Amino acid sequence: AGLTHVRADGSAHMVDVSQKDVTSRLAEAEAVLRTTAEVTAMLTDDALPKGDALATARIAGIMGAKRTSELVPLCHPLDISSVTVDLAVDDPQPGAVRLTARVKTTSRTGVEMEALTAVSVAALTLYDMIKGVDRTAEITDQRVVHKSGGRSGEWSRHA
Amino acid sequence: AGLTHVRADGSAHMVDVSQKDVTSRLAEAEAVLRTTAEVTAMLTDDALPKGDALATARIAGIMGAKRTSELVPLCHPLDISSVTVDLAVDDPQPGAVRLTARVKTTSRTGVEMEALTAVSVAALTLYDMIKGVDRTAEITDQRVVHKSGGRSGEWSRHA
Amino acid sequence: AGLTHVRADGSAHMVDVSQKDVTSRLAEAEAVLRTTAEVTAMLTDDALPKGDALATARIAGIMGAKRTSELVPLCHPLDISSVTVDLAVDDPQPGAVRLTARVKTTSRTGVEMEALTAVSVAALTLYDMIKGVDRTAEITDQRVVHKSGGRSGEWSRHA
Amino acid sequence: AGLTHVRADGSAHMVDVSQKDVTSRLAEAEAVLRTTAEVTAMLTDDALPKGDALATARIAGIMGAKRTSELVPLCHPLDISSVTVDLAVDDPQPGAVRLTARVKTTSRTGVEMEALTAVSVAALTLYDMIKGVDRTAEITDQRVVHKSGGRSGEWSRHA
Amino acid sequence: AGLTHVRADGSAHMVDVSQKDVTSRLAEAEAVLRTTAEVTAMLTDDALPKGDALATARIAGIMGAKRTSELVPLCHPLDISSVTVDLAVDDPQPGAVRLTARVKTTSRTGVEMEALTAVSVAALTLYDMIKGVDRTAEITDQRVVHKSGGRSGEWSRHA
Amino acid sequence: AGLTHVRADGSAHMVDVSQKDVTSRLAEAEAVLRTTAEVTAMLTDDALPKGDALATARIAGIMGAKRTSELVPLCHPLDISSVTVDLAVDDPQPGAVRLTARVKTTSRTGVEMEALTAVSVAALTLYDMIKGVDRTAEITDQRVVHKSGGRSGEWSRHA
Repeated sequence: AGLTHVRADGSAHMVDVSQKDVTSRLAEAEAVLRTTAEVTAMLTDDALPKGDALATARIAGIMGAKRTSELVPLCHPLDISSVTVDLAVDDPQPGAVRLTARVKTTSRTGVEMEALTAVSVAALTLYDMIKGVDRTAEITDQRVVHKSGGRSGEWSRHA
Repeated sequence: AGLTHVRADGSAHMVDVSQKDVTSRLAEAEAVLRTTAEVTAMLTDDALPKGDALATARIAGIMGAKRTSELVPLCHPLDISSVTVDLAVDDPQPGAVRLTARVKTTSRTGVEMEALTAVSVAALTLYDMIKGVDRTAEITDQRVVHKSGGRSGEWSRHA
Repeated sequence: AGLTHVRADGSAHMVDVSQKDVTSRLAEAEAVLRTTAEVTAMLTDDALPKGDALATARIAGIMGAKRTSELVPLCHPLDISSVTVDLAVDDPQPGAVRLTARVKTTSRTGVEMEALTAVSVAALTLYDMIKGVDRTAEITDQRVVHKSGGRSGEWSRHA
Repeated sequence: AGLTHVRADGSAHMVDVSQKDVTSRLAEAEAVLRTTAEVTAMLTDDALPKGDALATARIAGIMGAKRTSELVPLCHPLDISSVTVDLAVDDPQPGAVRLTARVKTTSRTGVEMEALTAVSVAALTLYDMIKGVDRTAEITDQRVVHKSGGRSGEWSRHA
Repeated sequence: AGLTHVRADGSAHMVDVSQKDVTSRLAEAEAVLRTTAEVTAMLTDDALPKGDALATARIAGIMGAKRTSELVPLCHPLDISSVTVDLAVDDPQPGAVRLTARVKTTSRTGVEMEALTAVSVAALTLYDMIKGVDRTAEITDQRVVHKSGGRSGEWSRHA
Repeated sequence: AGLTHVRADGSAHMVDVSQKDVTSRLAEAEAVLRTTAEVTAMLTDDALPKGDALATARIAGIMGAKRTSELVPLCHPLDISSVTVDLAVDDPQPGAVRLTARVKTTSRTGVEMEALTAVSVAALTLYDMIKGVDRTAEITDQRVVHKSGGRSGEWSRHA
């Protein structure tokens, strides 16, 4: 066994997926931004009545998902059929923001990387907005939590 | 007080930095990819004699740093004068990879976001290469660890 | 009723099109750049014998169409099968340039946004070239004029 | 006289600005999206309590400004020091949205194109969100309204 | 006869491929970087034990292939199913590096341009790394060597 | 001695230029597309009276120069102050097109890579337009021919 992205001589390549089936595929990823309850209160206050803080992160995440194959060298470009990014303030605890992205495609490869990139870019965008008030914030627990479609079928991290 | 990126009416904007000084600025960020010792062994084996696995992540991180202002909506575009990305396998423990990025500029704003984006994209690239053998890997401890230059001067997380 | 791009809680998302049919779709959009007859004469003179002014706008419009999903946050990426951009000088009146774009795809979503983006970028490019001689020029009447394919079938603005 | 972007033989080029002064420059542009009062009500309703419709357009406009030199072939790349995008619903009349962008730089060239690109991309994004309910909407009155800095000094369209 | 990308009136357009079949297509291109044996020795030395020089060029080439339709104005965007880039040092003679790219797609158009862009960007990347020690290096013999799939079937330059 | 882009441990990095002077710098590069006299006649015919073939290549080259640091992993992003791309048909012999690019900046690094990228992308664009009539064309003699500014001063290949 070994890494599929590395050939026998050690060189990287974009794996050939031309023989894989075009099927509906879905992936869900999450990440947590850890800051202070004082800061998450600012994110929420700013979100009322028409604050853009959370919307900015959500839009950045959606746009980031579409650029995955430009950022990750060996990712295949593919057509995305939907992206949602959700931000739960003070979850899983006060002073945290849980980010979740869900991406769908009808393609030859899965969209785990697209979902992970969405939460990553959304979290970076939140960090950018709060770094003036908390430079010790950190992004953690970034991982795939669910995928379905393709040869490997349905899989959930928390199953 | 409040978020600098959000105006009084709640709308997001790109903060005006035209009155800030052009100075030398540096930022360092880190992240950890947590997988298994079996997988980090693959990354290392592939790295010999001319395996591209770690190089691919490093190059992706360097290129990612240059695209920060395209990804993070309210970031200022700026000229980067250097980027290094280092990957330490089995650090801080077996089965982990510690990623560190160091970015310099001579500009009106700092480069924390560029350093964070570099480690983020490098970590996503590692994840992409190992997801075929470990889909439970996660990216964690992503944070700024050092910055210098600009009005706020020198700062270290671990000081 | 309401905006399809906004969920019940007010958050934006990229609409799920995975259940829509893959069909041939076409859209046509137009815009008008209004300047002076003296300026449109420059565009035309420069176009002879091998002036690049109109070609530059046309190429910019074609390339702009391909970047629609990078610019418009909730647009789906899709494969474009053709783009044409036409520029009619002194139409609908002396001192105006009418821009028309026609885009085709075989996809799950329509290409109205691609056609609109093409005329928009082409018009911005014309404005860029003439702003040194007429800074009061304006871009107007930018709209979709025709679409076919997909669930909503054939539609023409001027029908 | 003639177009600065076209050389004597008719070929396009990116004008040499190396001898121009690095100064503070500002530009403001506007555009109007014309739809129906029923539709602008949806944009406003969706904006409460945390609707993302207007924020999505604003973020798209800010990000669009940063990509101006990628879209407009003969534009110089430059560092932007601030961007604001404002959206006034039912202005100048019910059923319209007035978009205004204000861009600053400290550079060798002006930022009219960046301000125009910001309103253009923001308007396209609004159009994208409402096209499901009003495909006859149009974007109009797109123009530069103010500029300052550089050799040509202060200028206002409505002066 | 004439150029397919130019219409009867001389204007450029993106050719309509909507009636072409979706089939498996492959293209292979090559280029040669000519420098000195002293320089190619540096590339090889640096490649041991974990030097990134050749990997950097390979990754750049793979990523370049994915951006072909952004760079070449009249190219169709398409989904790539695999890319490999190989670099043979001191081939066809000491002091040369032969670059070969192989690209596959399942699409309506061929991938000659993607393969050529891959070798082109990989060669530029090599040049960038060696220009400090040999500014007289040159890139030559850049061409398509093989293609299959689509209406024109199998073709090899060296057949 | 060795490659400046590779550190002592063999890893690639973006070289630190923060201590280099900001000066006026210029670079000129060239390449030759070799095809047949029948094909170059098509490029010229199409160029009359308003054919876009050569203009398309020129615009692609200018836009390509602006994207150099996105394509070449270790290149520094920088502000370009001018770009010209010239195409000489049937030079240096019938059936050839000589491409020349000239790029200027006021920056900490030179613009050889920007000039080379401009001719490379322009040549790829020409190849794309003629590949339907001559798939055996090749791009050759791509090299830097002149540079000035910076520590190394004035240099000409043909001096």
